[in-house]
Amino acid sequence: MFLTEFIPLSKAKEIIEKNQIILDTEKIDLMDSSLRVLAEDIYSLHDSPPFDKSAMDGYAVKAEDTFTATTNNVKNLKVIDKIGAGDYSDETIKNGEAIKVATGSPVPNGADAVLMEEYTISDEEDDELNKLPYNIEIHRAVTPTENVAFQGEDIKKGEKILNKKTILRPQEIGLIASAGFPKIETYKKPKVKLIITGNELIEPGEELKKAQVINSNKYTISTMIKSTGANVDIEYGHDDIEEVKEAIKTATKEYDIVLTTGGTAISKGDVVVDAVEAIGKVMFHGVAIRPGKPVGFGIVNETPVFMLSGYPVAAMAQFDILVREYLFKMQNIDFNPRKHKRITNIKIASKLGRTDYVRAFTNEKQVEYALNKGSGIINSMVKANSYLIIDENHEGINEGDEVEIIYFESMNLNK
Amino acid sequence: MFLTEFIPLSKAKEIIEKNQIILDTEKIDLMDSSLRVLAEDIYSLHDSPPFDKSAMDGYAVKAEDTFTATTNNVKNLKVIDKIGAGDYSDETIKNGEAIKVATGSPVPNGADAVLMEEYTISDEEDDELNKLPYNIEIHRAVTPTENVAFQGEDIKKGEKILNKKTILRPQEIGLIASAGFPKIETYKKPKVKLIITGNELIEPGEELKKAQVINSNKYTISTMIKSTGANVDIEYGHDDIEEVKEAIKTATKEYDIVLTTGGTAISKGDVVVDAVEAIGKVMFHGVAIRPGKPVGFGIVNETPVFMLSGYPVAAMAQFDILVREYLFKMQNIDFNPRKHKRITNIKIASKLGRTDYVRAFTNEKQVEYALNKGSGIINSMVKANSYLIIDENHEGINEGDEVEIIYFESMNLNK
Repeated sequence: MFLTEFIPLSKAKEIIEKNQIILDTEKIDLMDSSLRVLAEDIYSLHDSPPFDKSAMDGYAVKAEDTFTATTNNVKNLKVIDKIGAGDYSDETIKNGEAIKVATGSPVPNGADAVLMEEYTISDEEDDELNKLPYNIEIHRAVTPTENVAFQGEDIKKGEKILNKKTILRPQEIGLIASAGFPKIETYKKPKVKLIITGNELIEPGEELKKAQVINSNKYTISTMIKSTGANVDIEYGHDDIEEVKEAIKTATKEYDIVLTTGGTAISKGDVVVDAVEAIGKVMFHGVAIRPGKPVGFGIVNETPVFMLSGYPVAAMAQFDILVREYLFKMQNIDFNPRKHKRITNIKIASKLGRTDYVRAFTNEKQVEYALNKGSGIINSMVKANSYLIIDENHEGINEGDEVEIIYFESMNLNK
Repeated sequence: MFLTEFIPLSKAKEIIEKNQIILDTEKIDLMDSSLRVLAEDIYSLHDSPPFDKSAMDGYAVKAEDTFTATTNNVKNLKVIDKIGAGDYSDETIKNGEAIKVATGSPVPNGADAVLMEEYTISDEEDDELNKLPYNIEIHRAVTPTENVAFQGEDIKKGEKILNKKTILRPQEIGLIASAGFPKIETYKKPKVKLIITGNELIEPGEELKKAQVINSNKYTISTMIKSTGANVDIEYGHDDIEEVKEAIKTATKEYDIVLTTGGTAISKGDVVVDAVEAIGKVMFHGVAIRPGKPVGFGIVNETPVFMLSGYPVAAMAQFDILVREYLFKMQNIDFNPRKHKRITNIKIASKLGRTDYVRAFTNEKQVEYALNKGSGIINSMVKANSYLIIDENHEGINEGDEVEIIYFESMNLNK
């Protein structure tokens, strides 16, 4: 009954890793792919640009015809055609000739440069009135290739432009569009069932009677789940073993992963852990971390079940320490929050063998203060911006020590 | 016709700021409030904890009854009641007595501490079989207040817990739930109309004919808009002034803000700018920035219209430099991407009076390389991770200079 043995965090992570599930892939519309994860390498279907293209509004010319032109030494060219956006010319430029082009127009045959419109004067003020052919004065020279973007200079047809496992930001999505793909193969989003247990829970807005607690985990944990890219459905269960068994059994058949909150305290008669043991296998229960010690992990119907505390901060920390990485990896996303070294100006006691994730407020240079009291105190997660990590080989930290911190924001998908 | 005068970036920002719109507020379900912006201060409706609460599974006791207890000097107490989650006891503890409590239970009258269950041995192995009253051996002492979370120690009833303008992360959402609110007042999300112009544009998947270009702005810019928390509808328009006038006129009546891409090149006959001038007012057209010079801003039907380039990278840079902040401020979000100092190992020329946003790959110490070629080259935005900013008072940078960079990710809402 003196249950005070907890497995170290490294061991818990090892067990979870051995039971990591990676989801199947699905084809989705590129338009819906923001922050999704590529499940295929992408090779361009086209050269980009797909043709030699004008980078400016102006005149496609033979550069040699412009040499030595200045405002004091204007030269003249005959404009033989005009090209609008999306259009092209079948004409071939000969010496002394030019074709009017827009930004993005194909550079016509015979031209090797584009002279910006600003350095020309044409017959009419309003160019629309110019009938072909018309004359322009040119006031500046261009060198061959000037203002021309050459076919394939950005991307060659068949070139690999993105690797499998890339997380898609606006620029990658644009690049895939340019490469010719309206749909892409991505990893599925995890379907998560969140089961909240606790007879004491009421909803915000309901009258709070003695011994009752507002169900905040429903809000915090479901928002955290969604922030990893996963979808979540929520169910409420009483502290009744048969009810919880039934809820978990059903959920493991319909969802990729199940999370519970409540009923995990390290004592006899903890409903959720007992329920998982009855219908599946508890892989561990109790990890030497603080906050969040009474966390469990099990497998039911080949589906992972993470059993989190009912205490709000404990549940959030357990999510950050163990679940977040699992949800990322299900989608084939590496989880590597940046760790920073900071000087601490506070002293915190800790226990050898235990890993502490101290809620802390950290600036660019140092840890300013810690909020390490009470695993029910959500306010501490609001006032903190980071975890200060005291690993299992350290017995606390002293003022002036260099410590390791992780900013909360760096654990996000869209960091 | 030698249109080479552009307003400085600072002037463009000033004009935009004078025309900043801030949206109305709306009441939404707390469950839908992730990354929304509070439009009210939040004051707690309850003490938190709402009663003196046990922080552990164990026995509520008078601490003095446990003094000197150890494994070699056990003491005995009589258990007079048991409390499950969500329940409480009307009994009052007298010396020599204890009441069994669960984590979160109200601490009964007369008790001033909770002894963890692990340090007790009761009559039966399975505690469920114990009939009241029963005896426990206790193997450790507790001090008064130990394992008790006192009423209001986290938050006092009526205390302000969150300020207006806070962006809601999971912890803030949980805190609001705990404070008793199922709904909250937030700033509305901007309703954005994105009008893509260009006769040359086709969709990815369609056959790419000469002079055509795949419409990637639709993907990049709409994803960028959504990443600020805004909603977007997209419309396609040809390079036809009547069509574009009609599209913009309609959009300004139905949306909070309009963005266009294409038709802004600094030359005569640019459809979008002419259209805005015809039905409203162009506030500026052409800003001394690179990339993105031919950017315009106007007002039509009291609605802001940002006119972006057709070139993919120019449009993205214009969005980052001018539009992103506007969309944030519409929701009352301050936009302060963190700027970092880095050493550059590259030399880049720039023009006095112009602000350059050089696409760059930067590590923790230095700018490793720049990707400053071609405003059509989306690939450069994929390979870069930051903007290196050369302000209008500098004529380029040299190897070894300390420069200012902004990581792309730090411009996100969820940073």
